Amino acid sequence: MLAVPNLFDNLPCKSEEEIITELLSRKRVRIERIVSTGQSTPENRPFIQESDEWVLLLAGSASLWIDGEGGRELRRGDHVLIPAHRAHRVTWTPKNEPTVWLAVPLL
Amino acid sequence: MLAVPNLFDNLPCKSEEEIITELLSRKRVRIERIVSTGQSTPENRPFIQESDEWVLLLAGSASLWIDGEGGRELRRGDHVLIPAHRAHRVTWTPKNEPTVWLAVPLL
Repeated sequence: MLAVPNLFDNLPCKSEEEIITELLSRKRVRIERIVSTGQSTPENRPFIQESDEWVLLLAGSASLWIDGEGGRELRRGDHVLIPAHRAHRVTWTPKNEPTVWLAVPLL
Repeated sequence: MLAVPNLFDNLPCKSEEEIITELLSRKRVRIERIVSTGQSTPENRPFIQESDEWVLLLAGSASLWIDGEGGRELRRGDHVLIPAHRAHRVTWTPKNEPTVWLAVPLL
């Protein structure tokens, strides 16, 4: 029978750090699951990435801020293209449930 | 405020054909939403693609069969890498609810 992993298996309920699991890795694209449990990006240390990154919120919720575009709360199904070299921050994720992201950095 | 599309917006409940919506298109990768509402792949015309494709079931359910690997029913969160040049078929999707896939062909 076809072997099929599930993205929602083995979700941590609590962790010090965000947990990143690589689902697929190719030369030009990576697909990752990111699980947040209350973490946020420090105000003085925003993320700034070398490449565009597409993210999709799959479970839980989060607030995302992107420099020049503003911020908002994300719910399940929301997806955003974060441009390369653009400061951005996850300003909030809930502590009481895992927030699950699919992230596709476009290398 | 940050403009954010939602993957579950404007889901058709009924359609003659599967509905494919391109969410992102780059030289080496495409990200698509596919909505099935009862469609399946004819037994004598399986899909055979030129490139690997990663698929994730986001809502609903489906049965997937891959030549040489067998078949199984998929539920929310299940993800599968379908190898290039490998015959595969969606043998069933429910008629009474939309089944939502995320598909990432690796060009």
